[in-house]
Amino acid sequence: MHIISGLAAMSLAALSLGALSGPATAQSDALSARESDPRVMGWMEGFPPPPDKLIVQPDSNYFSFPRLRWSVCHLREFLPTEEISRGLGAPVPLDYLSPADFADMRQEIDALTFTPIGSDATMTWAESLYANYTDGMLIIHEGRVVYERYFGCLDEDGKHAAMSMTKSVTGLLAEIMVVEGALDDTAQVRDIIPEIGDSAFASATVRQVMDMTTGVRYSENYSDPNADIWRYSAAASPFPKPQGYQGPDGYWEYLQQVQPDGTHGAEFHYKTINSDMLGWIISRVSGKPVTELASERLWRRMGTEQSAYQTVDGKGVPFAGGGISAGLRDLGRLGLLVLNEGVIDGERLFPAEVVQKIRAGGDPAKFGGFPTLPGGSYTSQWWVFHNDHGAFAARGVHGQTIYVDPEADMVLVRFASFPRAQNGFIDPTSLPAYQAVAEYLISN
Amino acid sequence: MHIISGLAAMSLAALSLGALSGPATAQSDALSARESDPRVMGWMEGFPPPPDKLIVQPDSNYFSFPRLRWSVCHLREFLPTEEISRGLGAPVPLDYLSPADFADMRQEIDALTFTPIGSDATMTWAESLYANYTDGMLIIHEGRVVYERYFGCLDEDGKHAAMSMTKSVTGLLAEIMVVEGALDDTAQVRDIIPEIGDSAFASATVRQVMDMTTGVRYSENYSDPNADIWRYSAAASPFPKPQGYQGPDGYWEYLQQVQPDGTHGAEFHYKTINSDMLGWIISRVSGKPVTELASERLWRRMGTEQSAYQTVDGKGVPFAGGGISAGLRDLGRLGLLVLNEGVIDGERLFPAEVVQKIRAGGDPAKFGGFPTLPGGSYTSQWWVFHNDHGAFAARGVHGQTIYVDPEADMVLVRFASFPRAQNGFIDPTSLPAYQAVAEYLISN
Repeated sequence: MHIISGLAAMSLAALSLGALSGPATAQSDALSARESDPRVMGWMEGFPPPPDKLIVQPDSNYFSFPRLRWSVCHLREFLPTEEISRGLGAPVPLDYLSPADFADMRQEIDALTFTPIGSDATMTWAESLYANYTDGMLIIHEGRVVYERYFGCLDEDGKHAAMSMTKSVTGLLAEIMVVEGALDDTAQVRDIIPEIGDSAFASATVRQVMDMTTGVRYSENYSDPNADIWRYSAAASPFPKPQGYQGPDGYWEYLQQVQPDGTHGAEFHYKTINSDMLGWIISRVSGKPVTELASERLWRRMGTEQSAYQTVDGKGVPFAGGGISAGLRDLGRLGLLVLNEGVIDGERLFPAEVVQKIRAGGDPAKFGGFPTLPGGSYTSQWWVFHNDHGAFAARGVHGQTIYVDPEADMVLVRFASFPRAQNGFIDPTSLPAYQAVAEYLISN
Repeated sequence: MHIISGLAAMSLAALSLGALSGPATAQSDALSARESDPRVMGWMEGFPPPPDKLIVQPDSNYFSFPRLRWSVCHLREFLPTEEISRGLGAPVPLDYLSPADFADMRQEIDALTFTPIGSDATMTWAESLYANYTDGMLIIHEGRVVYERYFGCLDEDGKHAAMSMTKSVTGLLAEIMVVEGALDDTAQVRDIIPEIGDSAFASATVRQVMDMTTGVRYSENYSDPNADIWRYSAAASPFPKPQGYQGPDGYWEYLQQVQPDGTHGAEFHYKTINSDMLGWIISRVSGKPVTELASERLWRRMGTEQSAYQTVDGKGVPFAGGGISAGLRDLGRLGLLVLNEGVIDGERLFPAEVVQKIRAGGDPAKFGGFPTLPGGSYTSQWWVFHNDHGAFAARGVHGQTIYVDPEADMVLVRFASFPRAQNGFIDPTSLPAYQAVAEYLISN
């Protein structure tokens, strides 16, 4: 386990967004956001840094709190990556409020109050940023940036781990291919990838993979050394396999060996292997890696400021379930593109139907296990709240989100490095805050 | 050795630019440039690629010919890296000849003839591009691009390994600090980095490190399993060290253990450890990694189109002796900046004296062992030809160059993936070709 522990820890974090257990807060003994600020901690400062400030693979468990507060901005320094190229042209600047209005708005939003889920006491928006260990917060309203702040390891030209928001990029690309007729979502996986063999995925439809309603075994019981997550992490590690290693090598070999668990189409179960299965499907159908698809369809055409990147396994396969790192504003552009049903900077990048299908959501009757998302659903790798505002979101562990609120004409992007992985711990001080700012913007 | 062989192979390539031996051509049995084109070979094509087209660490020796023809454009997919950020602004496009003039010029340059060193028969410029396994060729004359072609794995928005041209970036940054008064090149290394201890570097001056006239032991006898290059490669590997590994961990620990060999200041010896020593020195003095220095002083201010990147060791230290990958045009911008003594796009980035010192060269009497560079010298990590045109260059194994010819007001950048590492094999069909195009441009 020694040789893969670094990546395993990351994958763990990337993959785990399971049912909530324990108190809906950070551990009470965890360092606060201000205490654990990586600039306060001094991680990797000095030439060389002192040994206790060094974050290295595999010994120092680089993706555990508080080290992860530094590592979320530096994944490429630990892992091989592929670029998601923005191309060579000039970026298209986002529109902003005037500086005076922006400053006023900052004060007003910071002072907004809301009541966290399960709490009696109110909290201000500004307090919630620290409660959530926020690294970056961007709010776009009616096409203009109304709020933007950076914390911890992040600044405007840095990149941050998107974690499982990566799934929503993979899912968006797949939905574009479905709507454009390039991908048949009623086809079975075995029709597209015959060598999937007798994997439990073989008989699932593309749609079931997209919606994570497949019946596939994938256990995330971290205390069980034979849990699937450990085998997946070992397969995915880009580092040379330990001597005597007999398991699958890479994401796709793992997917060929997945066992059945339940019935395809019966229930939603959040299992990252679906996202990597989907990445394989869209790569096979398009003849392009997901990085190239994301570049061609999104990053080169959204006026982005920075190329993004995606971690790869030992065979160069990008981690379609969690590998992207990107700039805060560029994910704001992605949110705007989705909010506006495929249009950005006056150009239509894909049919409006793509977003309309995502917004419609999956079947809430098949959804469960997420107490902070009652009545929600998951479709095409996006979370749908089925609330009054028609909100939907990309979400990743440790607090990452692209939150799209059509009613408020609002996109909110947050990067964070909350000590615990599961968003169930983070939602109580996040989702009501987003609702409060949306209502403020509507009424303002 | 198994676990580090991949990186060792790369480092080998990066580090070796030793004395010429053997015939001054590619091996006679090597595949030609057209035969070994990675698109012809089909490396990494398919989802997944067939096993014989897969290039992976560590087994497939990814940096040996013909695989290196693919790998030179994909180093980040094998290794952890740090970004050299271009920032977020719009790039400043290079000036070009009009399309009609550009096409005419292409024909005329392609048809130029020259006589390779040690040959009786002439060769055309166009033929030389294939003889040299060229991946990208850019020529800028009087501030305008007059010639630009891409081959093999490279295109205009790709990045290519700069190999030891990285040293010239490190050296340029150091020379800027010297001229600006931030770095005393008469100081001894031990004055700046006390923990260099009793390494042979301790008593060398910064200038001796910059000019590679240190008396330090560093053997590159590949057939000797105890040769220093193997120990350096093992230290530098970003992958977890093999069980029982007792050697230094990272570039800087290695540098603390270097043994003496000869007298400081007596002779030039091309040894990559000097470049990494210099990287450590300028990081210590500036409080910034070389990637950040290159970004602040160069990439953010040259109007670059792409962020570059640099490979790192297991402690996040960038490989100052060979780790940069960059876009062809961006190295063209670097060449222009140097040609014009610190000015680009109308802005002065550093004092003219920086380039004047480099152009003046080192002491040719201390230089030797490079038959294709008679009367040359090496200073501040740049090669100086001491020829009629006052030419000087950044050079890297397998044919990389930024060739600056002040007399012809010409910058020429070549990326290549020649089968053999040493430029001594490549110069015979390169240097006379550069001279021919320079003379053509002067007379045109």
